[in-house]
Amino acid sequence: MAKRHQVVILGGGFGGLAAARALRKDPVDVTLIDRRNFHLFQPLLYQVATGSLSPANISAPLREILKKQKNARVLLGEACGIDLPGRRVLLKDGDVPYDTLIVATGARHSHFGHDDWGEFAPGLKTVEDATLMRRRIFLAFEAAERETDPEKERAWLTFAIVGAGPTGVELAGALSEIAHDTLKHDFRRIDPSQAWILLIEAADRVLPPYAPDLSASAQRTLERLNVIVRTGTTVTGVCEDSITVQAGSRTEVIPARTVLWAAGVRASSLGKVLAEATGCDIDRSGRPIVEPDLTLKGHPEISVIGDLGNFSHQSGRPLAGVAQVAIQQGRYAASAIQSRLRNPPLTAFPAFRYHDRGNMATIGRAAAVVELPWLRFSGLLAWLTWLFVHLLNIVAFQNRLLVLVQWAWSYVTFNRSARLITGENPFPLDL
Amino acid sequence: MAKRHQVVILGGGFGGLAAARALRKDPVDVTLIDRRNFHLFQPLLYQVATGSLSPANISAPLREILKKQKNARVLLGEACGIDLPGRRVLLKDGDVPYDTLIVATGARHSHFGHDDWGEFAPGLKTVEDATLMRRRIFLAFEAAERETDPEKERAWLTFAIVGAGPTGVELAGALSEIAHDTLKHDFRRIDPSQAWILLIEAADRVLPPYAPDLSASAQRTLERLNVIVRTGTTVTGVCEDSITVQAGSRTEVIPARTVLWAAGVRASSLGKVLAEATGCDIDRSGRPIVEPDLTLKGHPEISVIGDLGNFSHQSGRPLAGVAQVAIQQGRYAASAIQSRLRNPPLTAFPAFRYHDRGNMATIGRAAAVVELPWLRFSGLLAWLTWLFVHLLNIVAFQNRLLVLVQWAWSYVTFNRSARLITGENPFPLDL
Repeated sequence: MAKRHQVVILGGGFGGLAAARALRKDPVDVTLIDRRNFHLFQPLLYQVATGSLSPANISAPLREILKKQKNARVLLGEACGIDLPGRRVLLKDGDVPYDTLIVATGARHSHFGHDDWGEFAPGLKTVEDATLMRRRIFLAFEAAERETDPEKERAWLTFAIVGAGPTGVELAGALSEIAHDTLKHDFRRIDPSQAWILLIEAADRVLPPYAPDLSASAQRTLERLNVIVRTGTTVTGVCEDSITVQAGSRTEVIPARTVLWAAGVRASSLGKVLAEATGCDIDRSGRPIVEPDLTLKGHPEISVIGDLGNFSHQSGRPLAGVAQVAIQQGRYAASAIQSRLRNPPLTAFPAFRYHDRGNMATIGRAAAVVELPWLRFSGLLAWLTWLFVHLLNIVAFQNRLLVLVQWAWSYVTFNRSARLITGENPFPLDL
Repeated sequence: MAKRHQVVILGGGFGGLAAARALRKDPVDVTLIDRRNFHLFQPLLYQVATGSLSPANISAPLREILKKQKNARVLLGEACGIDLPGRRVLLKDGDVPYDTLIVATGARHSHFGHDDWGEFAPGLKTVEDATLMRRRIFLAFEAAERETDPEKERAWLTFAIVGAGPTGVELAGALSEIAHDTLKHDFRRIDPSQAWILLIEAADRVLPPYAPDLSASAQRTLERLNVIVRTGTTVTGVCEDSITVQAGSRTEVIPARTVLWAAGVRASSLGKVLAEATGCDIDRSGRPIVEPDLTLKGHPEISVIGDLGNFSHQSGRPLAGVAQVAIQQGRYAASAIQSRLRNPPLTAFPAFRYHDRGNMATIGRAAAVVELPWLRFSGLLAWLTWLFVHLLNIVAFQNRLLVLVQWAWSYVTFNRSARLITGENPFPLDL
């Protein structure tokens, strides 16, 4: 029996998983390698960070997803290098041979080169990021309740969110609901609704990639939720108890104990590994520049998909780091393999083309913006659309049910039952 | 206006919360102090450790529980001392005055004085304990899949549970289901059903506090689940890759990478604080010996309830560390306060008396043992009773619903969707 074509996929996110599943009927062996044993539904990660959902509600074990796909195996491992001539992925503890390699290891958040801000301004990419953010948010209210100095109390009750993309807007809306509704009767000394929630954005409007009228609508909704929106404002410093911002020539130091980072991203370390191994170009976020067919120049056996790659052939700008792009690229990479395995192989496989089915962001209770190719709308209908689309796309059916129950419950009661402060608490309370 | 009687409760477990709620209509100010912002339903903690439930499903924010009780406030804080003459609890960051103090800070697990075993044999008392245990269990199967040395693979597939009380029996049953059902089709190289699950107990039978026929029934069920039960066996050593046990004069070193601790407990550090402050006696688990009315000798203003206290006045042996005892003692402590506040005060307040309403332990799928004062039974009916009683006693209604959905789902599909390996994974895989 001839050895089957070996496809190795690095990363079990939207892109890697889409590629693995698209190959389920093909005469190939698929090896999916991830550092974690679960797929994470990142679009709802902010709901873990704000105490609405538990990590398991938006996760599905990779082995469970692929258990019935007999040509796929899952390895828990971390890739640290690539042996190009030997066609092997080097793991920290072993190596795995490939005929085709699909790299889909995604991105981390980045503090624009200020790594020292990371300690004070956590980002939101992993389950641990989310539980840390949740801890910071709810610990801040607890610390405010214990604080006797009014100025320090004000700093504990000031929340600054950096970046008004979908994640920043979603966090701001959820924080407003926490302060005004969830915690309404919870404290005896402080009034949580006195919290300041600042949303800081360098561009001149919130949700910069969306149409201007949707940005305006989102900003109106945020302001109705008492979120203080500061556009045209850049962050020039973050430390333990304040954030420094600049708008025009005016610099301001805002006392704030909780800074949440929803701005820049940086490619995972595999971007650099690929650049060093293949000599491909990377952009300033560390993303390899891919060819029109998502492969690396001179290496048709290596595809880079999802957040990790910079694909600029369609509009001149890199595609956004959203699930839809990753899924379509994963399926494309799989069909490129199918085409190459065909006998005779198709020589002229068409370039990847992203079909934008629309974007949406939720802003809070019963408010969202939806931008479809042929229509855009906001408000309650947009929110229902957002709910429906997200519920439908959660991988595991059980989670769909659990998330629905929790959303319905939270909507009626304003409760956020998953607001656990986990990890040992330091006393006096601190970050 | 006269200053109201100040009741300070340390600990928001079953006992502390029962006391706080029992005082809801009284002219007192209740301050509940806990290091965590949530109440934990400990009887189901093993289901978090084995990937069935999420931490939030068995937790409820303390503030949420007490939000409508206007005479109660919650403080996130850690008590580290008591100023007896000044009647103040000393926190790590401040102090709180009391007229009556109820100490309900519970117990931690204890490795019989071998603190060095703790690193290799995690116990199960907190949410962090449970997620660590979950991590160890599921990481062991992943490591076995990656392991090439058959002996090392065997050690990864050997799970030793120390202690066959309810928690140990419940863990063993759940581990059996994980190995035989949940992970059945998940791996390509190893066969998870080849895992060895050892249940090690020093007494001559499992579930020693139960009636002998229930112990025998439980052991038969465990053996049908392929659990290897070793009674009359003590642990003499635990290290990274093995556990040493002794039965009679025979000593055996069993290679095992996963040792789970479900044996001894030790009182929380407040036991020692109380002994030093009041001169009360403590037992060898560090529990203060309480008077018949749960107070400390010479200190009628201090009650010690739940796992933390040693109450031996009823049967000569300390009461078990179960929720029922803590709840009844919490209510008793509250009624003792009510009696003292009465005008004229009741001088002869009756001693505490525990009404044992029964005990139950689940052993696995559709099997449990139930011991009521007037009846004992095992099997499916016992399991249904166990389900019903536990569901009914989960504090928050939302969690009741979520747990029910997850149990029903797991029962039908054998899936354990909360089996996330959280925390960064080291590679090569290790503890």
